[in-house]
Amino acid sequence: MVVRDAEASRRRILRAATAEFAEHGIAGARMDRVAAQAESSKERIYAYYGNKDALFDAVFTASVARTLEAVAFDPDDLPSYAGRMFDYFADHPAAQRLTTWYRLERPTGRGLDAVIEANRERVEALSRAGHREFPPVALLTLVQAIASGWGTMNPEFAGAAATVDRAERRRTVVEAVRRLIAN
Amino acid sequence: MVVRDAEASRRRILRAATAEFAEHGIAGARMDRVAAQAESSKERIYAYYGNKDALFDAVFTASVARTLEAVAFDPDDLPSYAGRMFDYFADHPAAQRLTTWYRLERPTGRGLDAVIEANRERVEALSRAGHREFPPVALLTLVQAIASGWGTMNPEFAGAAATVDRAERRRTVVEAVRRLIAN
Repeated sequence: MVVRDAEASRRRILRAATAEFAEHGIAGARMDRVAAQAESSKERIYAYYGNKDALFDAVFTASVARTLEAVAFDPDDLPSYAGRMFDYFADHPAAQRLTTWYRLERPTGRGLDAVIEANRERVEALSRAGHREFPPVALLTLVQAIASGWGTMNPEFAGAAATVDRAERRRTVVEAVRRLIAN
Repeated sequence: MVVRDAEASRRRILRAATAEFAEHGIAGARMDRVAAQAESSKERIYAYYGNKDALFDAVFTASVARTLEAVAFDPDDLPSYAGRMFDYFADHPAAQRLTTWYRLERPTGRGLDAVIEANRERVEALSRAGHREFPPVALLTLVQAIASGWGTMNPEFAGAAATVDRAERRRTVVEAVRRLIAN
């Protein structure tokens, strides 16, 4: 019973921390808001996770794992992969925001094992698939940039982008990647 | 003489604030660090700029203006435009970081006039140039995403990306945009 309570408590903390980091980033996140939202305490959060940076690592690693599980990679059908990634980020803007905060606030350093491993596997799969248009690392970079491009526009663009509905935005992503690898 | 001193002081503040916001974002920026770096005082900064948000607006508007001036837009030669944008962000990573912080920390709101106007002009120029591959707004989104794609990779990717040197990264950007609009 105690174990089950502790698990439920950890889950609530992780869920609250995910929302807090997605909204405010690492430096901007406030542990007292996470504690209040999770109906927990700062002391308990620190006991479970160590410190704010370690809590962010747990949040981001879990977010990356969910993304990797939801967005199947297919080196032989990159346009469809890009479409799936577009859908995921459109449905889960917090995942894209966490990734962006992470890049800005942790520009250097060892990196997270889950992300290193996922990138390595994808680059190797692209090599094996025999793409000749671009080096595998470049191809992965381009596909990811295109798939997440609509989400990286500035607020000023929101008005203009709103003239392109979601289905059309998705179509442009898939078509752009198709053109990228068309012979 | 007093006027000239005030101008020099404002310039020092703007330069220090640009570095501070690029490094730490809006919420993370510390006005006392800006004051120390600019050899000024928080009181003077507030007297000149009002508050931290307004100082960020001044910094970002100036950064956007420099980018627009440095990166000539050519709706009839988008691959070269993408190459120029790649060069600019590679040489001025602070400009790309400011843009990204801005998007994360000001996801909604009125937007900055300079950016609204620049986007509007570019979309209109793309319409006039008669591109048929994608709607103008989508084309601008895709070109910007591709041109800044290398700068949006996570730290984990830095090792892999380092296997692609800058000239090759540039070539992939130009070639990707060429393929985007090839008939």
